[in-house]
Amino acid sequence: MTVAVICGGVGAARLLRGMVGAVPNTELIAIANVGDDLELHGLRISPDLDTIVYTLAEAVSGERGWGLEGESWQAMEMLSHYGGADWFSLGDRDLGTHLFRTQRLADGASLATVTAEIATAWGLQFRLLPVTNDRLRTMVTTVAEGEISFQEYFVRRQHDVAVTSVRFDGAAAARPAEGVLEALGAASQIVIAPSNPAVSIDPVLSVPGVRDVLAQRRDVVVGVSPIVGGKALKGPADRLMAELGREASAVGVARWYQDVIGTLVIDSVDADLADAVRQLGVRPVVTDTIMSKYGVTESLTETVLTLQSPTTDPKRGTGMD
Amino acid sequence: MTVAVICGGVGAARLLRGMVGAVPNTELIAIANVGDDLELHGLRISPDLDTIVYTLAEAVSGERGWGLEGESWQAMEMLSHYGGADWFSLGDRDLGTHLFRTQRLADGASLATVTAEIATAWGLQFRLLPVTNDRLRTMVTTVAEGEISFQEYFVRRQHDVAVTSVRFDGAAAARPAEGVLEALGAASQIVIAPSNPAVSIDPVLSVPGVRDVLAQRRDVVVGVSPIVGGKALKGPADRLMAELGREASAVGVARWYQDVIGTLVIDSVDADLADAVRQLGVRPVVTDTIMSKYGVTESLTETVLTLQSPTTDPKRGTGMD
Repeated sequence: MTVAVICGGVGAARLLRGMVGAVPNTELIAIANVGDDLELHGLRISPDLDTIVYTLAEAVSGERGWGLEGESWQAMEMLSHYGGADWFSLGDRDLGTHLFRTQRLADGASLATVTAEIATAWGLQFRLLPVTNDRLRTMVTTVAEGEISFQEYFVRRQHDVAVTSVRFDGAAAARPAEGVLEALGAASQIVIAPSNPAVSIDPVLSVPGVRDVLAQRRDVVVGVSPIVGGKALKGPADRLMAELGREASAVGVARWYQDVIGTLVIDSVDADLADAVRQLGVRPVVTDTIMSKYGVTESLTETVLTLQSPTTDPKRGTGMD
Repeated sequence: MTVAVICGGVGAARLLRGMVGAVPNTELIAIANVGDDLELHGLRISPDLDTIVYTLAEAVSGERGWGLEGESWQAMEMLSHYGGADWFSLGDRDLGTHLFRTQRLADGASLATVTAEIATAWGLQFRLLPVTNDRLRTMVTTVAEGEISFQEYFVRRQHDVAVTSVRFDGAAAARPAEGVLEALGAASQIVIAPSNPAVSIDPVLSVPGVRDVLAQRRDVVVGVSPIVGGKALKGPADRLMAELGREASAVGVARWYQDVIGTLVIDSVDADLADAVRQLGVRPVVTDTIMSKYGVTESLTETVLTLQSPTTDPKRGTGMD
């Protein structure tokens, strides 16, 4: 069986860590968000792709949860010395990744190719694909400042501003990267990682073809709720869902993904919400999901991987994969 | 009196160091080469401008003679880890300068504006101007590889390849930066620093209007020979002059600049060449010029600054400046 994981950044990277331990590399493919990419100081930065690579390479900073361990900040200090825009922290080691990516893209390589080169350099052996090679940017409309880019919202404003809407600039014209639709069409199981539905997963789903194939294969799609006890495990998913008029709960997540998931894994603390999830036509599966706790990444991964399709799945048990 | 200094990188920076000690900041302007600028990994790099700033800020690496002291190389190590193009060494601190410059240019600031911002951040108080804000690139035709950029020749090939010609791409369309022609027209004295005539000074002279104003004001233009005893003090000026069919000597320098300088300062070891220089219509001034020797920067600066025009100069002694 092959498993395709639709990924944002930190939460997805943690789940992938479990997947890598449980699924052969050749049967695992991660399809990642690029809506939070940015061009800054002339460099092309892909935060979610890098978080996944650094985390799976065991090179991520444990202290920060993003960026590289053993990092230094000399370039940023100099940038600040000039009064430059230093709101987006770029470590010196991390800069090497962006220099490489920017140069390779300028040479004509696709983002998918460069991502594979970076992942390979770090020893990753599963397949990591950006959802698209084309320009896709998550844009956030705020009450105070109008529309700003995702990173301006997330990092510069520390997601401490009220949001009225989110859109994915470039989505309509973006083509899925080579292999994305094929992987989603062929996977025995598709997992939506516990990332922010509004700004990490939706941009992936916004690439033409992706939502359709998920909807068609809804029975083999398993979501993992990023909302536990009404709160986001990390980041502004709860606040954002509420501001966008949705319920910030596991039920709200089930409703958000209703058309594309057959199953939603919700945390044990939300066991009482299982019925409400089921009433949306989504099978609830209750287990521990907080991966910062010891052993939970492995148990959650095992739970996800052993889920049988709620309805008859012709691809299961036929040896197709 | 105001002094305008036409500059390449290291040699010019050393002479400027002397000038800054001898000329009030408000009366000193440096006009620098941008022909060795490059775009690499998405960043805009201006090596001569940066060498001047770092040197005059007393922040240049004494060990290397270029780049910053206290430098680290984490970004380059990561770039190498990916198999990226790492032939042009970019220190982490130095990268901060390039990030700032690239962002500011992308914001629409001119190179002259960004250069002033960088110089000011380092506490420089004299005026430092790129000769042009427009794209100007020194291109070198090599026997082995055809035409390559200056930095590919100078750094990547360590200037260890035979050259047949040099041209300045973009020169015909380049406009002098605001203030360049005005400064050259008004200066009491114009100094051509001991930089490489073929690849550091000629690109400055190639910007339309610059050579003309120097030719018109030839009497107040003083060159300092970068060739001492037939050898370049640093870099490939001697080899390059010979390969381009010129004599690699102080006389060759006098001939190179014959139409734009009234005076050439040559080193004491070349005293016997003074007559040959004079026969070219250039007044020779013999003194110590090797600025790596203690006290020579100061004595050379003083010699240059006290030179009287060889012919009557209406701007001298009239209090015009």
